[in-house]
Amino acid sequence: MRNSSHLEKLVCSKCGKEFSPDEPQTICEKCNAPLLPIYDLESVKNALSKEDLKGRRADMWRYRELLPIKDERNIVSLGEGFTPVLKLEKLGEKLGIKNLYIKDDGLIPTGTFKARGLAMAVSKAKELGLKKLAMPTAGNAGAALAAYAAKAGIEAYVVMPEDAPLTCKLECYIFGARVYLVRGLISDAGRIVSEGKRKFGWFDVSTMKEPYRVEGKKTMGLEIAEQFNWEVPDVILYPTGGGTGIIGMWKAFNELKELGWIDEKMPRMISVQSEGCAPIVKAFKEKKKESEFWEDAKTIAAGIRVPKAFADFLILRVLYESGGGAVAVSDKEILEASKELAREGVFVCPEGAATLAGLKQVVEEGDIDKDEKILLYNTGSGIKYTEVYSKKPQIGVTAYYLH
Amino acid sequence: MRNSSHLEKLVCSKCGKEFSPDEPQTICEKCNAPLLPIYDLESVKNALSKEDLKGRRADMWRYRELLPIKDERNIVSLGEGFTPVLKLEKLGEKLGIKNLYIKDDGLIPTGTFKARGLAMAVSKAKELGLKKLAMPTAGNAGAALAAYAAKAGIEAYVVMPEDAPLTCKLECYIFGARVYLVRGLISDAGRIVSEGKRKFGWFDVSTMKEPYRVEGKKTMGLEIAEQFNWEVPDVILYPTGGGTGIIGMWKAFNELKELGWIDEKMPRMISVQSEGCAPIVKAFKEKKKESEFWEDAKTIAAGIRVPKAFADFLILRVLYESGGGAVAVSDKEILEASKELAREGVFVCPEGAATLAGLKQVVEEGDIDKDEKILLYNTGSGIKYTEVYSKKPQIGVTAYYLH
Repeated sequence: MRNSSHLEKLVCSKCGKEFSPDEPQTICEKCNAPLLPIYDLESVKNALSKEDLKGRRADMWRYRELLPIKDERNIVSLGEGFTPVLKLEKLGEKLGIKNLYIKDDGLIPTGTFKARGLAMAVSKAKELGLKKLAMPTAGNAGAALAAYAAKAGIEAYVVMPEDAPLTCKLECYIFGARVYLVRGLISDAGRIVSEGKRKFGWFDVSTMKEPYRVEGKKTMGLEIAEQFNWEVPDVILYPTGGGTGIIGMWKAFNELKELGWIDEKMPRMISVQSEGCAPIVKAFKEKKKESEFWEDAKTIAAGIRVPKAFADFLILRVLYESGGGAVAVSDKEILEASKELAREGVFVCPEGAATLAGLKQVVEEGDIDKDEKILLYNTGSGIKYTEVYSKKPQIGVTAYYLH
Repeated sequence: MRNSSHLEKLVCSKCGKEFSPDEPQTICEKCNAPLLPIYDLESVKNALSKEDLKGRRADMWRYRELLPIKDERNIVSLGEGFTPVLKLEKLGEKLGIKNLYIKDDGLIPTGTFKARGLAMAVSKAKELGLKKLAMPTAGNAGAALAAYAAKAGIEAYVVMPEDAPLTCKLECYIFGARVYLVRGLISDAGRIVSEGKRKFGWFDVSTMKEPYRVEGKKTMGLEIAEQFNWEVPDVILYPTGGGTGIIGMWKAFNELKELGWIDEKMPRMISVQSEGCAPIVKAFKEKKKESEFWEDAKTIAAGIRVPKAFADFLILRVLYESGGGAVAVSDKEILEASKELAREGVFVCPEGAATLAGLKQVVEEGDIDKDEKILLYNTGSGIKYTEVYSKKPQIGVTAYYLH
């Protein structure tokens, strides 16, 4: 056994109560709040230097000291992470921003950033001896769970609306997950998972309801810092649904600051949501600590169609602490932005496109200095969204029949 | 301008005649054969060590000394290459092979290995000042051309059968390529490109008809060598259509041998084709130097549905020189293999699945020692093949309706 993790304990994100990481944990029942892993950063300082990273494999496990897997043999990997950061020359020029970048999590197993969280959750589940992992999903998280569970030899129970995207359903089938299609919404799927927990001993790996998916998402922040040579961007725009990514990135930056690897200046984190489902934007504008349930949520960007995030108070905390913000964009703006990003060679998912639409708004409002380093986070590949994109004439078909 | 390329000249792969790499080149007209780039490897020995690679970016451009782009500012990159190598524990055990691996080129821009060749061809086209790139395509190569041309700001003309996969068409549209849909086969598309060359000054980037796509594919071999710590696998199974990949990998291994970075023992290269289109397999069995046109080519693995590869004599040369072989597999075996690979967490394209089906045959024939290091090459993501996989009940649907 090789143990390089410096994980120390889990703490409730509300009351601070401590929990053991050596047995399966879910949430703090008393507060109904997520648990967060805490590391012994003082000991990491002695064990790891920036220089050490150079020879390591180009995936998210290069940061193993800051990740929760104790025995490295439990790491379940399909080559996830260390996705590229690309400079957007043309768009930067158009928007008058000198240093505009995108990080592309389309190049990751199962084609979306969900792979990061599930690689971590499944690895930890393996370490803790869990045998049956379950989740309600809109599609992509389920596909990622199915893939990593297959690799780990653990049973996956995926419950999703029957109108979930074909590609995600197909992935779950072929990876060998037990798939339950529900005539209803993801909330109905959630009820079935609750039932399965009681009746069949399923372990629920819903986001923020177990403590490790957020650590997988944390690697997005660790990678950003390293890829920008430890000088983090001034602004990060992130499509926000459940918010695990924004919470994870902020956790990464704080840990790196404590290690002394980045300096005091942290990125301003900006949540981008859809006009059809913008609970975080509304709460932020009203300076509230928690969001309210958004009725009749509707947007083509299914990944940010989350009426009330379980960890909403943590998302809002990040926005306030970082001096960031929150903006809502329309579906039309999302489609336009997806086309603009494609003209830079990146075929993004609608959620990724939303960040560019959001940036335009922020620029218009004068909240960005043109010399600042701006990063858009693309959370998945457009390839998985043929159903969305092929219906939209806005994409600009230029086909001619010659024969 | 920063020039780290050690490119020296281009030579005809048949007659050895030299051509200048400083102007646009196509093929050797006299021999109707591909041109291959030749490097000054003696000078590379002084300029680059294995150790130098460690701190470099995790993409195919880390090998820039051995690549043909002279001014690094001409590199058109979307983060392609350095894709993961994964150990297949369960399948290895099932087949009685201790060291079975897969290299997964599903994690690459546009989801297939075509990105490597087109990143290189478009970069070199930019360097040479070409403005209009064209190709006939079954789909994936066209999507990759469209993506890199968009990034480079070069016009792309993609001609493809109207029944090409939806995802590839959509990619071409959104990347802004000029798309021509043809009511016919890829050979009809080829004729239209020929016409466009004459009438509109299109430059044809069909595989092996310009000298640089093969250099992009060469990076597959360079990466394999580095990722296996300069001890190359004993056997590599590769799905063979046009064959640029197998030719490129072999070129890589030979250059590395000349550099002294790997030793004399080279991998045995095995071409995997479909029973419905196996011209290379037939020629190999008959010990011929060239293949014959395969009538009525038919297979679900569209990427290996190539009735006669332009560079067939080079493919066969690799198989003979390496002491490798060639096997044909059925569509049924391909689908079964795709499922088996998915149960290891990797959702491959049908062409990638064919390599596992091929391996089973080779093992059965006793041509593999169980202690050998075997590598399957997956050339693309299954996500792009929903049309193929969703029609096949063999995939094993396990959906239940609960609501």
